[in-house]
Amino acid sequence: MTIAPEAANVNPERIFETLNAYQKTAALKTAIELDVFSAIAAGATTHESIAKRCQTSERGMRILCDYLVINGFLIKNGQDYSLADDSATFLDRRSPAYLGDAARFLALPEMMNLYHDLTAVVRAGTSSKGEEATAEPDSSKWVEFARSMGALQRISAAAVAETLGASAGEKWKVLDVAAGHGMYGVTIAKQNPNAEIFALDWPEVLKVAHENAKAAGVAARHHHLPGSAFDLDFGKDYDIVLLTGFLHHFDPQTIDTILRKAHAALKPGGRAVTVEFVPNEDRVTPPTTAAFSMIMLGTTRAGDAYPYSEYDKMFRKAGFTLNELRRGPGPQSFIISKK
Amino acid sequence: MTIAPEAANVNPERIFETLNAYQKTAALKTAIELDVFSAIAAGATTHESIAKRCQTSERGMRILCDYLVINGFLIKNGQDYSLADDSATFLDRRSPAYLGDAARFLALPEMMNLYHDLTAVVRAGTSSKGEEATAEPDSSKWVEFARSMGALQRISAAAVAETLGASAGEKWKVLDVAAGHGMYGVTIAKQNPNAEIFALDWPEVLKVAHENAKAAGVAARHHHLPGSAFDLDFGKDYDIVLLTGFLHHFDPQTIDTILRKAHAALKPGGRAVTVEFVPNEDRVTPPTTAAFSMIMLGTTRAGDAYPYSEYDKMFRKAGFTLNELRRGPGPQSFIISKK
Repeated sequence: MTIAPEAANVNPERIFETLNAYQKTAALKTAIELDVFSAIAAGATTHESIAKRCQTSERGMRILCDYLVINGFLIKNGQDYSLADDSATFLDRRSPAYLGDAARFLALPEMMNLYHDLTAVVRAGTSSKGEEATAEPDSSKWVEFARSMGALQRISAAAVAETLGASAGEKWKVLDVAAGHGMYGVTIAKQNPNAEIFALDWPEVLKVAHENAKAAGVAARHHHLPGSAFDLDFGKDYDIVLLTGFLHHFDPQTIDTILRKAHAALKPGGRAVTVEFVPNEDRVTPPTTAAFSMIMLGTTRAGDAYPYSEYDKMFRKAGFTLNELRRGPGPQSFIISKK
Repeated sequence: MTIAPEAANVNPERIFETLNAYQKTAALKTAIELDVFSAIAAGATTHESIAKRCQTSERGMRILCDYLVINGFLIKNGQDYSLADDSATFLDRRSPAYLGDAARFLALPEMMNLYHDLTAVVRAGTSSKGEEATAEPDSSKWVEFARSMGALQRISAAAVAETLGASAGEKWKVLDVAAGHGMYGVTIAKQNPNAEIFALDWPEVLKVAHENAKAAGVAARHHHLPGSAFDLDFGKDYDIVLLTGFLHHFDPQTIDTILRKAHAALKPGGRAVTVEFVPNEDRVTPPTTAAFSMIMLGTTRAGDAYPYSEYDKMFRKAGFTLNELRRGPGPQSFIISKK
């Protein structure tokens, strides 16, 4: 049996692991659905006791927990499991930073199905099925997004409000384009009692944003512009236009349409605030940020994770005079653009 | 906005990355299908030239290649992509160690679909759909397995033949239970011109093993026992019984049935050779080996990645007197058991 000489020094384990990587998604989603992390945090430490609390088989729970250890979400000491730091912070339901609901959206079967024939998508250069799901008014996908992704954005929304100086309390008129869960506008309204927020999105999605505004006690200053960002008149004299997690869905020409509308809607000196996955110019770092382009390939017609140089070009073309990139606390960055 | 104090030191990126991990499987499978690695090895280095050679869109190929860089399979230097060591060895079609075909099996939609509702599998403790696929005679799954997984087993098969001392040329009668691609028996026959191999598997699967025996020039000493390992008479007076990648599908009671048949079929002093994913007693190391239990959870009724202590118990119960564990060159180990 002849083996290539170089094979002696390399092994195919990473290839094997990657071909099975879909099981990592399934296992983490299942552990969140079964509330395994909360069960362990509440004192169940063996696979038998976790299985009992989560009402599962012992065999299934043992294999699931061992797999979560292998992938770093749990720690195993003898027969006892405990939580890794990120699991304790984000996956124990009693933690204030719980974001298990994000799993509902990120691993939604209709999202995952878009990758069943990624080969065809790469050939065509576009995800026609993803585009349908994205463009459909009141798509259940976006309601699910609004419902489940708010928690994941809390830290980032707080950082945006702070970056803008919301707590200084200036009288602000804020447009929240494609508001989704509405957390960015809601957080600004919470930190600035003189801010009026105009949230634009499909009616069913705005219901979710409204719930969040109510929970934050700012519903009276949270107004609704129901409809599509492409069809609707934005209104005018805004101090701030929020473009959070929106532009990445589109090609530069479509983005230009939105940026011109945003520019026209701002007061002179007003600011557009873009929250986006902005990789470095090499488009491969930082990893989580750069990998977002694969989500755009699978789920949109022509979206992307644009590097800053491309956003800068697009904003200048639309009439903005000054752009500034700030790295956010997570994988997203903020671009502040001045009219 | 209140953030849990511990949230300051941890971030949710690994959770986010894991929920999207299914995209890694899709991307690597697509790159293999489109033969991206061979295109780069053949001199196409920019995404435009790779797209041209693989007949895809430029946008799709750029995003795919960048994603492969992020995941370590390609290297990016300016606009030029090159192959990482493992990609060059195992994913360039002209490499003698090419194993791109394994992707066909590992990322087979019917395998991946078994994980769509892993939560139900963990609750029940058993994959009823996986069991159907495993037990079905001439299941297309096992033909695909035989066709695609031979290459991945070549190194391991060579190591087994060497461990057994095949090249010494003793007159051997070898039973290859659930032979699949047949590479273990074929490799022994190739190294030992005095070995006669009796390969047992479903008729459609044996056709694939026969092709491999023919290609290795040992077809005349490669005999067929078509049928199920549970129903068929094994015959007797074997020097060696091969149990390669077979026992993991079953619970200990079912394994006992097979081991007793193997024991009865061996000559006194004969050896059973088990090739298996045998994790350490902690069941979580080494990672690739231990993670095999998740494949068994998703795809079988009661299979597992058993640690050595459990195999040792099972073999002794079936009448074997001496067991010995040897770590293989990859994630699999060899257990040599003496009658």
